[in-house]
Amino acid sequence: MIKVGIIGVGTVGTSVVQILQENADVIAARAGVDIVVKSGVVRDLTKERGLAITLTDSVDDVINDDEIDIVVELMGGVQEAFAVVKRALKAGKSVVTANKALLAYHRYELQEIAKERAFEFEASVAGGIPIITALRDGLSANHIESIVGIMNGTCNYMMTKMTNDGVAYDDILKESQELGYAEADPTFDVGGYDAAHKLLILASIAYGIDAKPEDILIEGIENITQDDIAFAKEFGYAIKLLGIAKKEKNEVELRVHACLIQQDAMIAKIDGVMNGISVVGDKVGETLYYGPGAGGDATASAVVANIIDIARSGKSTPMLGFNRPMEGSQLRLKPTEKIKSKYYLRINVSDRAGVLAGLTKIFEQNSISIETMLQRPAKNASANLLISTHTALERDIQNLMSTIEKLDFVNEKPAMIRIL
Amino acid sequence: MIKVGIIGVGTVGTSVVQILQENADVIAARAGVDIVVKSGVVRDLTKERGLAITLTDSVDDVINDDEIDIVVELMGGVQEAFAVVKRALKAGKSVVTANKALLAYHRYELQEIAKERAFEFEASVAGGIPIITALRDGLSANHIESIVGIMNGTCNYMMTKMTNDGVAYDDILKESQELGYAEADPTFDVGGYDAAHKLLILASIAYGIDAKPEDILIEGIENITQDDIAFAKEFGYAIKLLGIAKKEKNEVELRVHACLIQQDAMIAKIDGVMNGISVVGDKVGETLYYGPGAGGDATASAVVANIIDIARSGKSTPMLGFNRPMEGSQLRLKPTEKIKSKYYLRINVSDRAGVLAGLTKIFEQNSISIETMLQRPAKNASANLLISTHTALERDIQNLMSTIEKLDFVNEKPAMIRIL
Repeated sequence: MIKVGIIGVGTVGTSVVQILQENADVIAARAGVDIVVKSGVVRDLTKERGLAITLTDSVDDVINDDEIDIVVELMGGVQEAFAVVKRALKAGKSVVTANKALLAYHRYELQEIAKERAFEFEASVAGGIPIITALRDGLSANHIESIVGIMNGTCNYMMTKMTNDGVAYDDILKESQELGYAEADPTFDVGGYDAAHKLLILASIAYGIDAKPEDILIEGIENITQDDIAFAKEFGYAIKLLGIAKKEKNEVELRVHACLIQQDAMIAKIDGVMNGISVVGDKVGETLYYGPGAGGDATASAVVANIIDIARSGKSTPMLGFNRPMEGSQLRLKPTEKIKSKYYLRINVSDRAGVLAGLTKIFEQNSISIETMLQRPAKNASANLLISTHTALERDIQNLMSTIEKLDFVNEKPAMIRIL
Repeated sequence: MIKVGIIGVGTVGTSVVQILQENADVIAARAGVDIVVKSGVVRDLTKERGLAITLTDSVDDVINDDEIDIVVELMGGVQEAFAVVKRALKAGKSVVTANKALLAYHRYELQEIAKERAFEFEASVAGGIPIITALRDGLSANHIESIVGIMNGTCNYMMTKMTNDGVAYDDILKESQELGYAEADPTFDVGGYDAAHKLLILASIAYGIDAKPEDILIEGIENITQDDIAFAKEFGYAIKLLGIAKKEKNEVELRVHACLIQQDAMIAKIDGVMNGISVVGDKVGETLYYGPGAGGDATASAVVANIIDIARSGKSTPMLGFNRPMEGSQLRLKPTEKIKSKYYLRINVSDRAGVLAGLTKIFEQNSISIETMLQRPAKNASANLLISTHTALERDIQNLMSTIEKLDFVNEKPAMIRIL
């Protein structure tokens, strides 16, 4: 019998306990042993949870319990969780976590410490979709060329509603908060940070890249308007918040931002709260993984899969997929300013003569070539210029944006969305 | 160093050799050891293959080679391949295969023999998509409620072209043969047998069900016409050849046939030669896996992933996912006549009075209730009646079909497509 201790018995922790009980028949058959939750750590012992496990408010009760084989960390946060899982590993436990923030900052240190013990984290990326398993084990024969993923259900729900129902950003944010899809402070989701944590985890498995959130380009969906949606529809695009990892020679670019994607791409067809991750390998081509990225049961499904895996095979694969560094071809992070993309710009200008000539000259000076332009009338004798460019350097587009922003005929800070 | 012997060096075998050479850097880093192909078995030694491995025409040279750790079986066929992999396992080798026919018939015997050694088969279902890994390891916490998959790229290509370009079945079959997507004798693909082999493999991992192709409902796409496509479009459906596994209480139904699927379902959006498999788990909900189901490199990507897995962890999970049978709730195959579905029927009738009244009476006598009906004029003063039914029993629909077929006002054998 395998005994599990859970640190943090909230929504996901409760689902883990319930799945291990309700699906005990199939889990025992697959694992070859019975798996039971012995105890759980909670902050508030007085709260009624209706679970048939021993509850304690002391982490020590789990970590020092010799009967417990696997510690499941679901407390969240970074530093405290890091301290707790380190202690658990050093006490000889295997560890399973769903904590993406912990991994975004400490995954390589954890891999070092977890050399002898299993440390699994399937639930940390895309909830119930077994993307870690797919990428680490299923696609291991490939050089990964790119990962393009819808990794945040909140943003995808909001973008889908803005597209299908014509709702304004502020209204759909309010609705998402009422539905429980968005937090009271939504920054972590709509600002792209949640997706960035997940992208960094996938990038380590695909490329062995050790980057932190601060090192990469992260933008959210806060500035997207119905004008942008209209432009997207007009030119056959969907708008999605994407996490993107792309290899070119020895460099890997990592970025999270809203993106215009051609409507017929599989990833553009993923709507609502669902997640989807497209992975291109040099040998397999494109594969795509779709499913629920959040929710207690879906996330717990991944946590329990890791527990079963440890029960039946102990430590099998290396935590981040690499048993040793790649010889002679170590990949490194591409500096943000060197990223290349096509861009879409929305510039609100005064509707008067000479404006277009003035603008296009600045595009030329910054080596940026315009592909399409759409002019839509806006409030107060102004117009919105909706412009898409040919491939350009991130550095050049940033220079262009800061130049344009200061022009007297430009009425508000211009908006920019990258095109995939 | 891990040494591999390949039995059958055709398209996939050649790709396996090439991937292990071309991606040796990333493969060695992930596996933690170098992996090399030592030798390959071919029928015709005189044919130039341009591969830097030792070739032999004797299986014994690989099986009796003590230096070889992993035997890759790519010879195809059932009985001869079965004999060869048994010998390899008994000689202490781990085995990797892409042979779905072998597994459709002998997977449980192989699991018995492979108790001590790894026996892996990721490439046998859906080519490059790591669906075995996802189902066996990633979703192991779930009772699987259903699997619905586009598992044959040839059929999906043909159905997509018939739908998008209005091409007749015979014309698109000819084109597929010219493109190399369909064999000279296409029966194995268009008759549904290829998909059935794959479905049986997935059903064992999901349910522990030991069925053979002969035990389950298998129909192909040979009888689908542009009338059916028109009906599908009219009512918001796509037509796909699907492999379906569905659990209800203690019974699992397994079936392969063309299906009308609502156009907004994710699985309906998978077009062309691509494969896609939707899996619903009781806890995770729906997840879907998309990618190339065939092709040398895509299939070899899965074969090499299995080799890497064996190199880094030896035998880890049980071959078919279960370490022991489920206690008290063993699942069994549902008899075909008990399957329930909605149905679409195409009946060519003489265009004269009394026909509809006569037909609808027979529907009533067979307890089958009509949901929609569309009448389209056809050749020679006849009409095609395109009818969809409410949920009915397979037994009743079969009785209905054989009754209708004999009516004097019915001009040709009626066609039937199930609705998902």
